[in-house]
Amino acid sequence: MPSHALIVADLVGIAAFALSGGLVAVRKPLDVFGVLMLAGATGLGGGFLRDVLIGATPPAALNDWRYLIVPVLAGLIAFRFHPALGRVERKIAVFDAAGMGLFCVTGAAKALEFGLEPVAAALIGMLTAIGGGVLRDVLAGRVPVVLREELYAFPALLGATVAIVAVEWELGQVWVIVPGALLAFGYRMIALRRGWHAPLPPGMDGY
Amino acid sequence: MPSHALIVADLVGIAAFALSGGLVAVRKPLDVFGVLMLAGATGLGGGFLRDVLIGATPPAALNDWRYLIVPVLAGLIAFRFHPALGRVERKIAVFDAAGMGLFCVTGAAKALEFGLEPVAAALIGMLTAIGGGVLRDVLAGRVPVVLREELYAFPALLGATVAIVAVEWELGQVWVIVPGALLAFGYRMIALRRGWHAPLPPGMDGY
Amino acid sequence: MPSHALIVADLVGIAAFALSGGLVAVRKPLDVFGVLMLAGATGLGGGFLRDVLIGATPPAALNDWRYLIVPVLAGLIAFRFHPALGRVERKIAVFDAAGMGLFCVTGAAKALEFGLEPVAAALIGMLTAIGGGVLRDVLAGRVPVVLREELYAFPALLGATVAIVAVEWELGQVWVIVPGALLAFGYRMIALRRGWHAPLPPGMDGY
Repeated sequence: MPSHALIVADLVGIAAFALSGGLVAVRKPLDVFGVLMLAGATGLGGGFLRDVLIGATPPAALNDWRYLIVPVLAGLIAFRFHPALGRVERKIAVFDAAGMGLFCVTGAAKALEFGLEPVAAALIGMLTAIGGGVLRDVLAGRVPVVLREELYAFPALLGATVAIVAVEWELGQVWVIVPGALLAFGYRMIALRRGWHAPLPPGMDGY
Repeated sequence: MPSHALIVADLVGIAAFALSGGLVAVRKPLDVFGVLMLAGATGLGGGFLRDVLIGATPPAALNDWRYLIVPVLAGLIAFRFHPALGRVERKIAVFDAAGMGLFCVTGAAKALEFGLEPVAAALIGMLTAIGGGVLRDVLAGRVPVVLREELYAFPALLGATVAIVAVEWELGQVWVIVPGALLAFGYRMIALRRGWHAPLPPGMDGY
Repeated sequence: MPSHALIVADLVGIAAFALSGGLVAVRKPLDVFGVLMLAGATGLGGGFLRDVLIGATPPAALNDWRYLIVPVLAGLIAFRFHPALGRVERKIAVFDAAGMGLFCVTGAAKALEFGLEPVAAALIGMLTAIGGGVLRDVLAGRVPVVLREELYAFPALLGATVAIVAVEWELGQVWVIVPGALLAFGYRMIALRRGWHAPLPPGMDGY
C-alpha cells in the first residue's frame, strides 16, 4: 500500500502536470472541455502508462476521486486564471518540471512496490515522468519536450535513481521523495535558465 | 459474457469508426493498405485502449473474426465507394459521432462487467469513445477531434453515465445501449450542426 | 521460455530499429539525449506494445540488460558515426525494414507462446513490427511510415504468417525466424527500390 507521503507527492505532481497541460490548451486556445481534456491527459497520462507497463490495471487513479478531482481543478484554474499566471510559456516549463521531478520518484517507488528490479524501476520512473508531457505535446501537435534540445529525460532518470537508492537503503518516505524530486526539478530548471544543452551530433552543430 | 446486443452495438460502432478512419485516409489520399490500416486503427483503437486499461488482455477482438472482418470491410467500402458517400468531411463527422455514441455505452458496460466502480467505468466509456478518433487523428497528422472546439468528450461522458445508470437499475440491454448512445450521438450532431461551442478561455475570445 | 535464436533475432531487430530512430533524431538534429530517447523508443516500442497487448507485463525487456544496452549502443553509434553511415534517409529505410522483418516473426512467435490463436498472433506480429516505427514517426512529427504510400504493413503480416505456419508445423527456430523475416524484409526493400505502390482510391490517382 502506498504511503500517505507518496500519494501527496503524486497528487502534487498531477496538479503541476495538469496545470502545464491546461496552459498549453489555453494558449492554442482550446475551449473549456479541451482544456480539461488536455489537463487530464497530462496529469494522469504518465501514471496510466506506468500502471499499464507494470501490470497494475485498472489504474488505481480511476477509482480514487482525489486523482480525478485534482486535474479537473487544475484545468479550471488554468482556464480561468491564466492571465494571472503570467508569461504562459515560462509557467508551462516550470509546472512541467515540477511534475517531472515528482513523478520520477513516485513512479520508481511504485514500480519497486510491484516487484520490478531496481534498473527496471528507474526506467519506469523516467517513463512516468515523461509520459504525461509526451502525451500533452503529441495531442497538441508540439514536438515532445523530451526530444527538444534541453535536458529532460536525464534529470528524470537521475531523480528516479536517487529514489531507488533511498528505498534500497530503507530510508523514510521523505528521503525517497524529496532529494530525488529536488535534484530532477532543480537540474531541469537550471538547465532551462542557463540554456544548458547536451551535445549535438558531430557535423550538425551549425543548425 | 457480453450479451448479443452489446456485441452488435460494438460491431456497429467499429464499422462507423472504421468508415471515418477510412475516409480520412482516402482524403489524404493513402493507398489501399494505408486506408485499411487507418480504418482498423480507428475502429479497434478505442476498444484496445479500454481492454489494456481494465486489464482485459489480450483484447477479445483479436480472437474474434467478426471484430477483424468489420473494419476490413468498412475500409474497403471507404476506399471503393467514397465518391458515393458524398461530401467526405461531413460524412467523417457523422460516422465518427455514431462510433462515439456506441462506444461510450459499450465501453462503460464492459468496464462494469470487469468490476470497475461506476465513476471509473464512466471514464473508461469516455476513453473508449475518444480513443479510436484520437489515434486516427494523431496518425493522420490532424489535431484530435476531442481537442477541437466542438463538444465531443462531454457527450461521450454523458452517454456513458446514462448506460451505467441503466446497468445499476438492472434494466435490459436495450436500455443500457439505446438511450445513452442516442443522447451522445444526438448531442454531438446538434452541436456540430448548430455550431455550438463551449466557452473559450477569458481574454482568448478574439481568436 | 524464448529460445536463444528468438532472443538473438529480437536483439538484432531492436538494434536495427534503434539505428533507424537514432538517425531520424540525428537528422532533425536532436542532442545526444534526444537521440538516445528516440533510439530507445523505436527499438523497444514495438515490443512494449506487444507485451502490453498480450498481457506480458512488465515487459521482459525492462529486466534484461541486453535489451537495454542494445538501443543505447545503437543510439550512440547513430549519434557518433552518422556521416559514415552515408545517405541518412536511405539508411533509415534499410534499418527500419530489417527491424520490421525481424519483429514480425519474433512478435508472432511470442504471441503464440502466450496462448494467442494463430490469426491473433499474426496481427500481434504485425503490430510489433509497425509499433516502434509509428512511435518514432509520431514523436518526430513525421507521417508514420506505415501510412505512407509504400508497402509496409502487408509484408509484416506476410512474414508473421510464415512464422506462424512454421511454428504450427513444429519446424525448428531457424525456420520460424529466417524465411518470414527474409520475405518481409525482401518484399519491403524491393517495393522501396522499384517504387511499387499499392492502388490509390478511385478518383484520387491524380494527386
